[in-house]
Amino acid sequence: MKIAVDAMGGDNAPQAIVQGVEQARDRFKDIEFLLYGDPEQVKPLVHNDERISLVKTTETISMGEEPVRAIRHKKDSSIVRAAMAVKKGEADAFFSAGNTGAVLAAGIFIVGRIKGIDRPGLTSVLPITQPGSKRHGFVYLDSGANAESKEKNLLQFAHLGRFYAENVLGVDHPRVALLNNGAEADKGDTLHKEVHAQLAQQKDLNFVGNVESGDLLFGKADVVVSDGWTANAALKATEGTAKMFLTLIKDGIMNGGLRAKLGYLLLKPVFHHIGHLMSTSTYGGAVLLGLNAPVVKTHGASDAKAVDKTIEQIHEMINSHVIEKTVAYFKPKNVDNDQKN
Amino acid sequence: MKIAVDAMGGDNAPQAIVQGVEQARDRFKDIEFLLYGDPEQVKPLVHNDERISLVKTTETISMGEEPVRAIRHKKDSSIVRAAMAVKKGEADAFFSAGNTGAVLAAGIFIVGRIKGIDRPGLTSVLPITQPGSKRHGFVYLDSGANAESKEKNLLQFAHLGRFYAENVLGVDHPRVALLNNGAEADKGDTLHKEVHAQLAQQKDLNFVGNVESGDLLFGKADVVVSDGWTANAALKATEGTAKMFLTLIKDGIMNGGLRAKLGYLLLKPVFHHIGHLMSTSTYGGAVLLGLNAPVVKTHGASDAKAVDKTIEQIHEMINSHVIEKTVAYFKPKNVDNDQKN
Repeated sequence: MKIAVDAMGGDNAPQAIVQGVEQARDRFKDIEFLLYGDPEQVKPLVHNDERISLVKTTETISMGEEPVRAIRHKKDSSIVRAAMAVKKGEADAFFSAGNTGAVLAAGIFIVGRIKGIDRPGLTSVLPITQPGSKRHGFVYLDSGANAESKEKNLLQFAHLGRFYAENVLGVDHPRVALLNNGAEADKGDTLHKEVHAQLAQQKDLNFVGNVESGDLLFGKADVVVSDGWTANAALKATEGTAKMFLTLIKDGIMNGGLRAKLGYLLLKPVFHHIGHLMSTSTYGGAVLLGLNAPVVKTHGASDAKAVDKTIEQIHEMINSHVIEKTVAYFKPKNVDNDQKN
Repeated sequence: MKIAVDAMGGDNAPQAIVQGVEQARDRFKDIEFLLYGDPEQVKPLVHNDERISLVKTTETISMGEEPVRAIRHKKDSSIVRAAMAVKKGEADAFFSAGNTGAVLAAGIFIVGRIKGIDRPGLTSVLPITQPGSKRHGFVYLDSGANAESKEKNLLQFAHLGRFYAENVLGVDHPRVALLNNGAEADKGDTLHKEVHAQLAQQKDLNFVGNVESGDLLFGKADVVVSDGWTANAALKATEGTAKMFLTLIKDGIMNGGLRAKLGYLLLKPVFHHIGHLMSTSTYGGAVLLGLNAPVVKTHGASDAKAVDKTIEQIHEMINSHVIEKTVAYFKPKNVDNDQKN
C-alpha cells in the first residue's frame, strides 16, 4: 500500500512528520510513502529512504489560510498534491497534520465522496475511561466537519461509524448511540427527536438510544453519532476540562512546596496512566469518513509518536477494507438504508 | 425579605433543605422563610422556628414526572404553592432542589416573565479555574431551559447575563462573549454568525467576541451567552470530564498500593482546592433569569451547605435589585435594545 503524506503540515513539520514516517516504515513492511514537500527541508531529515519517495512541491498552505480558497489557488501545495495522488490512484490514503479546513476541503473536493454519502463526517476515536471497561475507545462523529447537519447526514454518520468500529476497531455488533440532551427517547430538539426515531428503525444497526455529553467517556456506546455542531462543542469542552484539570494539578504541585512535590512523585504512575488515556497520540488522527479513500488529519501539535500511531491507523483502515465495505453498503439501492438485508 | 422554599424537592429533602435554611436564617437576619411541604416530615426537623413558617402542602412532584402536566395537575404541591406565593406577592423569591422541569415551568407559567423577555434563560455561575485570575466565577446562560433558541433570545440572554454579573457578582463592565465553534468573528452556523453581528452592535454591552467551549473555564469572559442546546452540551461535557478525572484519580489511588495512598495524603490539599473550585455548592444554584422574581434551582443532590449558599445568592439578588433593574431596561421602549442611553 502507498500513503501520500503532507510533510509540511503541523507545528513540528517537517521534522516530526519525517521521523514518524520512518518509525512507521520500520514497523510496517507493506507500506510505501510518498512525501510531499520542499526537498531542501525534507531530504536532510530522512535517515534512510527505503520505501520513502520525496515529491517536490513549491507551495505551503499555512494554518490561518481560508481553506477552500487555499486548495483552489495553491495547486502545487503539499496538501493538494498529496490529495491529487489519491484521486489519480497513485496512493491509497492521504495523511496531514496541517490546516484542518484545507485537509477537509481537499478530501471532499479532490479525493471525493462515496456515492450515497451527502456529507462526510470527521471521525475521532475517543477514550473510554471507565475503570474496568473491556474496550478502550469509541468512534465519535461528526466532530466538526459540518456546522449544520440534517437527518439524513446523521443516519449516514451512524453507518459510517459502525463500519469503522467493526472493521478498524474490531468491535462485533457495535452499540450505536445518539448524542442528545437527555437519555430518554423523547428528548431533544426537532432534529434529534426525528433522528432518534429513524435510528431506532434501522434493522442493521445496534442502536442503543441517546447518550448525554456528560456520559461520553464512560463507555456507554461504541459509536456516538452527532451533528457536527454539538459534537464539536462537547469534544472541545471535554478537552478543555481535561487541560484545565492538568493545569490545576500542576499549579497546585508547583505552589504546594516540598510536600506536594513528593506527593506528585508518588502519584506519578497514576498521572502517567491518565495522561496516556487522554493523549491524542494514543488514538490516532481524525478520519474524514465518507470519502473514497482514507483521509486522516492529526493534531497540529503532533509529535513523531502521534504520526507513527496515525499511520498505523491508516494501515488498519486499508487492510480491513473498511472503505470498500462502506462503498458497497451505500451503493444506490441502499441510499435510503431501508432495503438492506 | 421573604423566600418561598420547596421543602420537599431534592434527593436529601426535606432534611438538607431544612438544615440549609436554618444555617442561612442564622447568617442573614433580614430573611424570613416560608417552607412548603408535609408538616409531619418537615416540622420535626426544624430546631428553631425563628423566621421560619411552615405551610402545609399535600402533594409532591417527583423527579421523573412530566413537568408541565405536573404543575397543572398538582395544585397543592410544594413547587406550585411556593411559586404561587411569589406570584401573589407573599414572597420575594422561590427556591427548590426538586424536578428541574417543574421548577422552570412553575417559574414561567406562575411567577411569569419580565415584559420584553420572550424566553427566560437558565443561568449558572461557573468557576474560572485559570490560576492567578482576579475573578472566580462567570455567568453562563442559557444552560438548558430552551432546546431551540432564536437570535432575539440570545440577545436578551446577553443583557440578562450582564445585569446579573454587574449586580450579583459585582463586576464592572462585564465582558460578554458568545459561545461558538471558533474564536474568529465569521465562525459558526447561521444563527451564531447573525447573533455575533448583532451583539457587536449593542452599544451598552462590552462584547468581547466568541469563546470556544474548550476555553470556557479559563476566564476569557464574565458572561458567556449561548443557545440552550449548545450550552447544555458543553456544560454536561465539562461536568462529565471533571467527574471522569476524579474517578480515574480515585481508581488509581485505590489500586496503586501504599505508594499511591501516601501520594494522595501529601497531595490532599491540592485535590481539596480543586474539589472546592469545581463543586456546585461553591457557586449557588441555577437561576431562571428573565422572570419577575428570583426563581432558583439547586442540584438535586444538594446538601445543607449548598442550600445555604444558594440562599445567600438569592439574598444578594434581592438586595442588589437586579430584577428591578432588568425590568426597567426591558420596558417596551427598549425591546429592540437599540434606543438605550
